[in-house]
Amino acid sequence: MGEAVIEERKTAAQGWFRQLRDDIRNAFEACEDQGGALRDNLPPGRFVETPWERKNEDGSPGGGGVMSVMKGRVFEKVGVNISTVHGRFSERFAKEIPGAEEDPRFWASGISLVAHMHSPKVPAVHMNTRFIVTSRSWFGGGGDLNPPLPLDEDTADFHAAFKSACDAHNPDYHPMFKDWCDEYFYIPHRNRARGTGGIFYDYLDTGDWNDDFAFTQDVGRAFLDIYPKLVTRHMDEAWTDEDRETQLVYRGLYAEFNLLYDRGTRFGLMTGGNPEAILMSLPPEAKWP
Amino acid sequence: MGEAVIEERKTAAQGWFRQLRDDIRNAFEACEDQGGALRDNLPPGRFVETPWERKNEDGSPGGGGVMSVMKGRVFEKVGVNISTVHGRFSERFAKEIPGAEEDPRFWASGISLVAHMHSPKVPAVHMNTRFIVTSRSWFGGGGDLNPPLPLDEDTADFHAAFKSACDAHNPDYHPMFKDWCDEYFYIPHRNRARGTGGIFYDYLDTGDWNDDFAFTQDVGRAFLDIYPKLVTRHMDEAWTDEDRETQLVYRGLYAEFNLLYDRGTRFGLMTGGNPEAILMSLPPEAKWP
Repeated sequence: MGEAVIEERKTAAQGWFRQLRDDIRNAFEACEDQGGALRDNLPPGRFVETPWERKNEDGSPGGGGVMSVMKGRVFEKVGVNISTVHGRFSERFAKEIPGAEEDPRFWASGISLVAHMHSPKVPAVHMNTRFIVTSRSWFGGGGDLNPPLPLDEDTADFHAAFKSACDAHNPDYHPMFKDWCDEYFYIPHRNRARGTGGIFYDYLDTGDWNDDFAFTQDVGRAFLDIYPKLVTRHMDEAWTDEDRETQLVYRGLYAEFNLLYDRGTRFGLMTGGNPEAILMSLPPEAKWP
Repeated sequence: MGEAVIEERKTAAQGWFRQLRDDIRNAFEACEDQGGALRDNLPPGRFVETPWERKNEDGSPGGGGVMSVMKGRVFEKVGVNISTVHGRFSERFAKEIPGAEEDPRFWASGISLVAHMHSPKVPAVHMNTRFIVTSRSWFGGGGDLNPPLPLDEDTADFHAAFKSACDAHNPDYHPMFKDWCDEYFYIPHRNRARGTGGIFYDYLDTGDWNDDFAFTQDVGRAFLDIYPKLVTRHMDEAWTDEDRETQLVYRGLYAEFNLLYDRGTRFGLMTGGNPEAILMSLPPEAKWP
């Protein structure tokens, strides 16, 4: 593979993640404009950007990213982070990463999103897609729904959106990636799933880069299409103190998963990532009563 | 070492942990009687016991324990757990445990305590001591103070109590075990200590079992002496919403440490321990704003 082709792909992927970030922010701010006005007399929320830079262990520049956080009246706390980082894996990690055994250099770009909502009636959500380059290259990512009070209709619509994105590329994708999601977001010590699922994929390198990239774009578009619909569907419903309590306890479970099991969280923290960006996923408030 | 001597030691250690549990519960309930009466018109809290049983992987009985939890008007949530468990370490864990390489059988008894307080002015606290028997045997444990709003006087008194307990046995103990505590309860990704320290010791087997046991008892007595004093010192002070916010954010940090780094928590959850008893340490409410 020519170096020029790889560079073109990096540029294309990075540009897409930024574009998707912009579109998601716009959609979420539109939800803020439409909903929650009657609650707390809060003004519609707006995203606040915080750029950060990464340094490699030897002090050389290692890329960085931009956190976008909104604390609004519909979204209690939502982070939409993009980052593009590069460097060398430590010897220990290189062994676990495809294509890094011979050459530990890596480049990685992605978007990562977690939304915690004021209303217990609106599902929380997580979405992430990424493009990784070592001596090989691949896409990974997915999205999963985390409702404190699950509704069959929401679950079905969320799954249907990702199923369409998958089916446009390969009929095997959705059953495979849906199962992978259920497996990944399982909390063994609680004997339960973290949420109601979605899709999860990794190491996607079919040999047809254009299709792999188009699939990753479709996953982002599917999310952008369905999630704001679920938000607007429920954001102005009333809820009880008991619903809120259920939400806060559910968020405790969410924090347990992220800190105990989530590979991205642990990997990021153990390898000197930006803790603010990584822990953006933790809920604004949680309970372990 | 004769089997009869070992059995005698197990019985003595287990009896002590139960005795200490009773004494601590009484002291904490006395705090409930004296303090917090003006707040929320809550009655003084009382401990509620929940026994649990452990099964080994082959289904044979593996001991168990008793959780004691109090949700009161001074103590927002405090757990004082005792347990005595026995079985065989898995091959993987046996390699990490002294004396378990040749014979994977273990027996372990201990007391474990975490207190989260209503008032941000009253320090939270953690204390744990244990006696472990494989083909070898040793004591371990310690205590550390976790004030959302640290005060030099409290920190000094807490350290002085453990110093007395240490100095009665070996002048090297306190400097060594205090450093070990600072090292253990450090949160690398936050670049800070979890709290204001205390002591931490493990693998204590000097060859003089009676003294090792007496030291572990003195650690428990030191805790029983000093901590209720710190509680009564501050429990009826007023606090602001800002103090409470500081406390809730500090508790987020505490949860991060326990889920990401605490060996007991991870070890317990990964090896089929009782998640309710293990996660008793998590704060009743926390924030990541």
